[in-house]
Amino acid sequence: MKIAILGSGSWGTALTIHFGRNGFEVIQWCREKEIADSINRERKNPLYLPSILYPETVKATISVKEAVENAQFVFSVIPVQFTGSLWKENKEVLKDKTLICASKGIEISSLKTLSEVYKEIFGTINNYYVLSGPTFAEEIAKGLPAAAVVAGKDRSETLKLVKTLSTVTFRLYASTDIKGVELGGALKNVVAIATGISDGMGLGNNARAAIITRGLHEIKKLGKLLGAKEETFYGLSGLGDLVLTCTGDLSRNRQFGLAIGRGEGKVDEKFVVEGVHTVEAVYRLAKELNVEMPIVNAVYKIVHERQSPQEVMKELLSRPVKEETT
Amino acid sequence: MKIAILGSGSWGTALTIHFGRNGFEVIQWCREKEIADSINRERKNPLYLPSILYPETVKATISVKEAVENAQFVFSVIPVQFTGSLWKENKEVLKDKTLICASKGIEISSLKTLSEVYKEIFGTINNYYVLSGPTFAEEIAKGLPAAAVVAGKDRSETLKLVKTLSTVTFRLYASTDIKGVELGGALKNVVAIATGISDGMGLGNNARAAIITRGLHEIKKLGKLLGAKEETFYGLSGLGDLVLTCTGDLSRNRQFGLAIGRGEGKVDEKFVVEGVHTVEAVYRLAKELNVEMPIVNAVYKIVHERQSPQEVMKELLSRPVKEETT
Repeated sequence: MKIAILGSGSWGTALTIHFGRNGFEVIQWCREKEIADSINRERKNPLYLPSILYPETVKATISVKEAVENAQFVFSVIPVQFTGSLWKENKEVLKDKTLICASKGIEISSLKTLSEVYKEIFGTINNYYVLSGPTFAEEIAKGLPAAAVVAGKDRSETLKLVKTLSTVTFRLYASTDIKGVELGGALKNVVAIATGISDGMGLGNNARAAIITRGLHEIKKLGKLLGAKEETFYGLSGLGDLVLTCTGDLSRNRQFGLAIGRGEGKVDEKFVVEGVHTVEAVYRLAKELNVEMPIVNAVYKIVHERQSPQEVMKELLSRPVKEETT
Repeated sequence: MKIAILGSGSWGTALTIHFGRNGFEVIQWCREKEIADSINRERKNPLYLPSILYPETVKATISVKEAVENAQFVFSVIPVQFTGSLWKENKEVLKDKTLICASKGIEISSLKTLSEVYKEIFGTINNYYVLSGPTFAEEIAKGLPAAAVVAGKDRSETLKLVKTLSTVTFRLYASTDIKGVELGGALKNVVAIATGISDGMGLGNNARAAIITRGLHEIKKLGKLLGAKEETFYGLSGLGDLVLTCTGDLSRNRQFGLAIGRGEGKVDEKFVVEGVHTVEAVYRLAKELNVEMPIVNAVYKIVHERQSPQEVMKELLSRPVKEETT
């Protein structure tokens, strides 16, 4: 069974290695010729996870057409902001394919999720699936166990798909809530920044656990208004990914928050860009839909209005008390 | 306003210091005279959090009667297995008091929660509240921020209570789901053992996040059958405490799991006792109520049947795939 992986970042590379190692015929599309060449010749991606060798059976190409030809499944694993344009450019060869989107995020220019972007281009989401969950790429590439969710429009088709693609080390659960699964992975990043700030300020484990819990509560409220199911936020693509991102130091958004919380004057530029976008997108969505999101607001004040983390956190803690579920 | 704290373990000590520091008149009941003397004379508990000084205003006593006299609120913070007998012995002086139970766990001998134990003794739970959430004692005693839930039978009385007892650093939310709030804190411990085993085996962050997520799913299923509300498990006393216990190394149950996962021949006796009790209680409840709890079963097999963690984890990962919400 042939799988095409579009993208050669760390997650695309991890999925390629994982499926290659588990008996699938995998071909990876890379934008850069040097990367494809290195994979084909040296069996490694020089930029991402360079210490992990590809199985012999994997091929790399710089042609999307060649990659997806005869592929039963196409994984789209490219940066969110470039996903729409790649799909458009390759609409003809992609349109009848079963496409599994594994990128997480919201298209900043349109505030759309990727299933919405897909639907605009292809006119339907019958062949569209989204994969999301707590999955640090490096651990998947190393063969450590993990679980994630795949959501698709049709219940039995989605179950069939997860049965085909699950392996002992990477266990997939089925869902029909496309919107919920894609939103969990996108919205969690603001909470990761918030817990990063809190940890950077040395506020402790209790504060972090409280921010994760109340943060998920906020995300869920927004997600429901965006058409997602509440229960999805309590699953692997919501809570699971949130916990991973807020407690594992590999997340860029967390690193961004940590630097702010520690009061480090200079924050690494690559963290800044992603963090700032994330906060802005969620803040704008919340405002548009008129949802009360105190943690998101706090992060926005710190990141965009340059207010002092100490002052903002104090304010966050002195709101009137209330019932937990409101 | 006078608060009595029954118990001189780390949590009782932290609550005493916290409320004392926030302008309440606090009196702490200690079973041992030496501890009460030390608190009164040296302003510290020699056994728990000895590095944190008590505020001058706090008193300690070995008489429950003296402690609770004229107290508006009585916090019960003694080990779960001894709670029922202390309440019984002091039924007369406790029966008209507003009692806030802050101990977490299930009475092993009866498989009852503490609100059930209370009801049996006092005949009503009109004056009973439960406090639970992600609260490492040491952080509270140090004045770091935290949030927790207080549940009581009557909605407006509970709201009044949390408004009186909330402070800027320790924020309380109100709930009416007594059963849900007490079960979260009790059931989470099996998941803490499971993530400890997984971490001890080096299975990684992805696996840990998956176990936390699926573990909460199991807990929630059992909790609902025991009369709790589903949403409570997604709040501070459920998810919040679970995340804290599974990612912070201060938990005994986590330490117990870590030792097993690392294959350490000798596990510290004090960890063993608590871990073994926890697993057995939850396993028996699940069996009694016929709930499918694969993570609880796995931990039971490892802890009680001495099966190999490797074999059991492999089996756990190779169950048939399915829909996420089932």
